Amino acid sequence: MKKIHITGLGLLGGSFALAAKRKFPELTITGWDISTQNLHEAHTLGMIDSSQELPDPDADLVILATPGDTLVGLLERTLENIGNETLVIDLGSTKENLCKALENHPKRAQYLAAHPIAGTEYSGPRAAFAELLDRKVMILCELEKTDLHLKEKAYELFDALNLKLRFMDPQEHDRHLAFVSHLSHISSFMLGKTVLQKMEDDKNIFDMAGSGFASTVRLAKSSPAMWAPILTENKDNILAALDGYISNLSEIREKVANGDASSIHADFQEINKIRDILDLEK
Amino acid sequence: MKKIHITGLGLLGGSFALAAKRKFPELTITGWDISTQNLHEAHTLGMIDSSQELPDPDADLVILATPGDTLVGLLERTLENIGNETLVIDLGSTKENLCKALENHPKRAQYLAAHPIAGTEYSGPRAAFAELLDRKVMILCELEKTDLHLKEKAYELFDALNLKLRFMDPQEHDRHLAFVSHLSHISSFMLGKTVLQKMEDDKNIFDMAGSGFASTVRLAKSSPAMWAPILTENKDNILAALDGYISNLSEIREKVANGDASSIHADFQEINKIRDILDLEK
Repeated sequence: MKKIHITGLGLLGGSFALAAKRKFPELTITGWDISTQNLHEAHTLGMIDSSQELPDPDADLVILATPGDTLVGLLERTLENIGNETLVIDLGSTKENLCKALENHPKRAQYLAAHPIAGTEYSGPRAAFAELLDRKVMILCELEKTDLHLKEKAYELFDALNLKLRFMDPQEHDRHLAFVSHLSHISSFMLGKTVLQKMEDDKNIFDMAGSGFASTVRLAKSSPAMWAPILTENKDNILAALDGYISNLSEIREKVANGDASSIHADFQEINKIRDILDLEK
Repeated sequence: MKKIHITGLGLLGGSFALAAKRKFPELTITGWDISTQNLHEAHTLGMIDSSQELPDPDADLVILATPGDTLVGLLERTLENIGNETLVIDLGSTKENLCKALENHPKRAQYLAAHPIAGTEYSGPRAAFAELLDRKVMILCELEKTDLHLKEKAYELFDALNLKLRFMDPQEHDRHLAFVSHLSHISSFMLGKTVLQKMEDDKNIFDMAGSGFASTVRLAKSSPAMWAPILTENKDNILAALDGYISNLSEIREKVANGDASSIHADFQEINKIRDILDLEK
């Protein structure tokens, strides 16, 4: 592997660049970001060797790390402008619409749909760090549609970055992510909104916020440019997750209103099961 | 300060014991827990010097660290059984009902209503650690009703433990905590419930859970014995917080259903304000 191009040099694209540079010191990384400030910062931070909108024809890999609503257009433009030995990988958080849009593309075999389960609540090149991807799960969809020889280039990079590969179809991916990622972000944003609204007539409301609040509201710091499109891209699954969540909240609201502590206790005890599941995941 | 008695030797009571032992090596700590296992563990972990249900008459401080629904009865029983030089402190998470119940108690001056903003999602003596309280906020309510001389004993302990003291009335305390603590726990428990329900027909739902999910669902591991009573003790404030939260969730649900990404983006951007507020708090 000699040359990579990265479009979108924020948290994820920037972290890929830093980690790849560390593992392959001889690698040339070209890159692009729609924000000139990001592009300048990525240069300063040593993420890219040169800034250019399009990959060189001899690039081994092109990584697209831009918000979900830009990816279909960007993928089509990128596929038009690559050589025969280049593989294009997107890192978007939803996969079904993307795979469907690319289904009949003449260069479908030069595309790999990927999603690393890695991130923080911060964004932009300055939020990036080489360890972000280390030992994280990397989901790959519709692997069978990607050229066998080109896939090897992706594996070389992913293995070097210690990514743990998982395979699933795009529908399953989007359904799962709605529950274990997208819903968490919505619940966190709406929690932040609720307390900010309360602050309007109660200025000191945050004074007593402890680590529990910080933990649940952390994701409300996330980038709107990244997260707003995810909600509409994965609409049906997110509506199902949100409906379940709102219904559970309404149910416990009734129990609180009725002062039914013993039923709340039983609920919480049942939910505590999640301890074993989360500890198992570690 | 020579002698402290602690009733309830879980996360909070146990951490108080460990921290007090560290700061005052000569201190005698007697203690009690309704669970014989907890009591045994507290002994083994060096939290208490002797186990006894009631404090000695010459105890300087009695700390009550039991679930909210036990505190009124325990406070009354404890106040009956102390000498004139003993101060009783409760660490409950709600304060309004408690202060009201003790309002006309003949020994009201020997009681101090306190709430340390410190905890983890774990419970029991084994979850306790001496640093839990270090530099945490300690809220004190109705300070003016506590005997001046006895208060000095509490200050001696609190200062030694690096607690940052704050003063507010019990109504304000409960209103604030509903939004910045209790709502977080409910949102987390219900998030856990929603994903557990989904797991019933989708066994691998947790496979792709990342750090964002872990962060938002962490509090769903919390103790039901502690949290169920808080929800009913602070009913009115929690209903207000929950109603605001459910209404915000329903509103964004409509925006998702309508595919209104730009309005979701505007919302998220507004909520991002919480970055500055939370970073300020640090």
